[in-house]
Amino acid sequence: MGPHPAVAAIRLAVRRVLHDILTELTTEQTTEQTTEQTTEHSGDRTPLPPSAPLVLVACSGGADSIALASALSFEAPKLGVRAGGITVDHGLQSGSDLRAQDVVLRLRGLGLDPVESVAVSVGRAGGPEAAARDARYAALDAAAERHGASAVLLGHTRDDQAETVLLGLARGSGIRSLSGMAAVSGAGGRYRRPFLHVDRQTARKACMVQSLPVWDDPHNVDPAYTRSRLRHEGLPALEKALGRGVVEALARTARLSRDDADALDSWASQAETSVRDDTGLLECAKLYALPSAVRRRVLRRAAIDAGAPAGSLFARHIEEVDRLITGWRGQGAINLPGRVVAQRQGGRLVIRQG
Amino acid sequence: MGPHPAVAAIRLAVRRVLHDILTELTTEQTTEQTTEQTTEHSGDRTPLPPSAPLVLVACSGGADSIALASALSFEAPKLGVRAGGITVDHGLQSGSDLRAQDVVLRLRGLGLDPVESVAVSVGRAGGPEAAARDARYAALDAAAERHGASAVLLGHTRDDQAETVLLGLARGSGIRSLSGMAAVSGAGGRYRRPFLHVDRQTARKACMVQSLPVWDDPHNVDPAYTRSRLRHEGLPALEKALGRGVVEALARTARLSRDDADALDSWASQAETSVRDDTGLLECAKLYALPSAVRRRVLRRAAIDAGAPAGSLFARHIEEVDRLITGWRGQGAINLPGRVVAQRQGGRLVIRQG
Repeated sequence: MGPHPAVAAIRLAVRRVLHDILTELTTEQTTEQTTEQTTEHSGDRTPLPPSAPLVLVACSGGADSIALASALSFEAPKLGVRAGGITVDHGLQSGSDLRAQDVVLRLRGLGLDPVESVAVSVGRAGGPEAAARDARYAALDAAAERHGASAVLLGHTRDDQAETVLLGLARGSGIRSLSGMAAVSGAGGRYRRPFLHVDRQTARKACMVQSLPVWDDPHNVDPAYTRSRLRHEGLPALEKALGRGVVEALARTARLSRDDADALDSWASQAETSVRDDTGLLECAKLYALPSAVRRRVLRRAAIDAGAPAGSLFARHIEEVDRLITGWRGQGAINLPGRVVAQRQGGRLVIRQG
Repeated sequence: MGPHPAVAAIRLAVRRVLHDILTELTTEQTTEQTTEQTTEHSGDRTPLPPSAPLVLVACSGGADSIALASALSFEAPKLGVRAGGITVDHGLQSGSDLRAQDVVLRLRGLGLDPVESVAVSVGRAGGPEAAARDARYAALDAAAERHGASAVLLGHTRDDQAETVLLGLARGSGIRSLSGMAAVSGAGGRYRRPFLHVDRQTARKACMVQSLPVWDDPHNVDPAYTRSRLRHEGLPALEKALGRGVVEALARTARLSRDDADALDSWASQAETSVRDDTGLLECAKLYALPSAVRRRVLRRAAIDAGAPAGSLFARHIEEVDRLITGWRGQGAINLPGRVVAQRQGGRLVIRQG
């Protein structure tokens, strides 16, 4: 008898990602060294040599990342991969250090090695959620470097992805913000999200049937957090109105939007060079001839190049600059974030720091 | 003292659209005849000559379209435009004929002429909402032709647009379905939506302060209708979770997505000719080299050209065909809706009706 369907699903998701990682390692290494350590391993628990590739799981102790850790511990040895784990202590709740120690013990119990708890101090920049995320990724980056890990697995599920798309939708800043989280991200594709197609319920079920205790982060049900309100009120109400397929539709929207945004960015990147004159200034007539979707991206890139912070540059800023091209009636200079000024001068669009 | 801000807002929205319509008419007519009838009118209520351009408002008797009719009746004469109105009796509720007659009287009371009630019979194709919409637009098209109208104004508000984006999101079929309703649509740009930037509350307020009675369609609060559930439960819950800016963000998403989808469609249209061989077959190697966003659009167009009904062709169908290009491992023919079959043969992708 095979494993429970939920366990089979999480293992398959992890196996696919490990295969991708090994394929990429092999491709990189064929020009450098032998590929000995990436061949099939016998599957017994003989310790792998330290030269075997290492994949870490980032684990909060919640159901998603505990499920991920369990699947990694099962699949990695069969592929000759060492499995390790990192838990980040954000220090935001009393007793978080003890809980981190508990997660370390549970990851060791799953056979992961190395396992480490990393304490971070969370700043305030960008709000509590963004600050915690920034601190967490900095710690994971450092841990991956320290241990020489080939990849770090993250437990984000399809439900997390759906929430991320809705959060992007609320910004109303275009399809890039609808593209959610990437399956592969970070420097050199370090971060992998094997569960983007797996729903939260499956991860939880997989923990249950494997008798793995999980920890429910009180932040996840705290209505002070936007994501928590979305999870417990917004998304359920949307499902009630639109049907149960909403989460899948949102996740699919993320994939399609990401591809679309990538294609349009590459178009804008090519277009940008063709609309500049000999002195490097943007020619209004050539900008006018571009499709508006491409023109707006060229304008956005130009503003960022001139020093406008990407995070403060909203769709309405770009729309205003765009009207210098499409609705020209002699309007004056436009002030953008980062003391950047856009103005039209003699058929050229000049965007520079004032 | 000027008009109430809500009344000023709806009038400004209509004035802008009338200006657009007149500009287009003038451009068309300069090669044909004089532009006499589009010059500024004195603003008194002297009847305009039958040769003056006619703009119709489609009016259900609800707050949005009554507000639109009131703004049209105020602005049109000042621009030398005749204002008329059409109400469609869908025959779906008992007494709908009497209500249509009541709307006719109210439109006449606003000074609109001609005013007409058109009875339609609603079929069942595509569900109750789609069937009613199809019957309504067919009737409006016929009325516009009959009266020689230059345009038909529709009262969709920013809130309607937000709901339409969420309905598109629930389909999960990509950014085209997120692009909502166009400000200009239909054959020759017949339909115009002046209120896409105006919120429902403003339209309602404008009716109130002008003492215009409005009729609330019971369908709008009937939870049997998806849009009604979205309006009264889904969207309010989303606003509660994400903040009051959600409606505006959704409307902006619609505009941005529409431009993006248009640009990608034009790219795909150009790419399609370049990836065909001398016999008109799609070359797999050339398809592979396209960005996936463009390739998927080329594949979708090819499937529709081969006879697959656009409405039954989902993202998952196209993804499966795409794997013949990006994940080729000898898989067999793929069945698409409309008895269309896609298969890879000797480096070519053959899509035809089976």
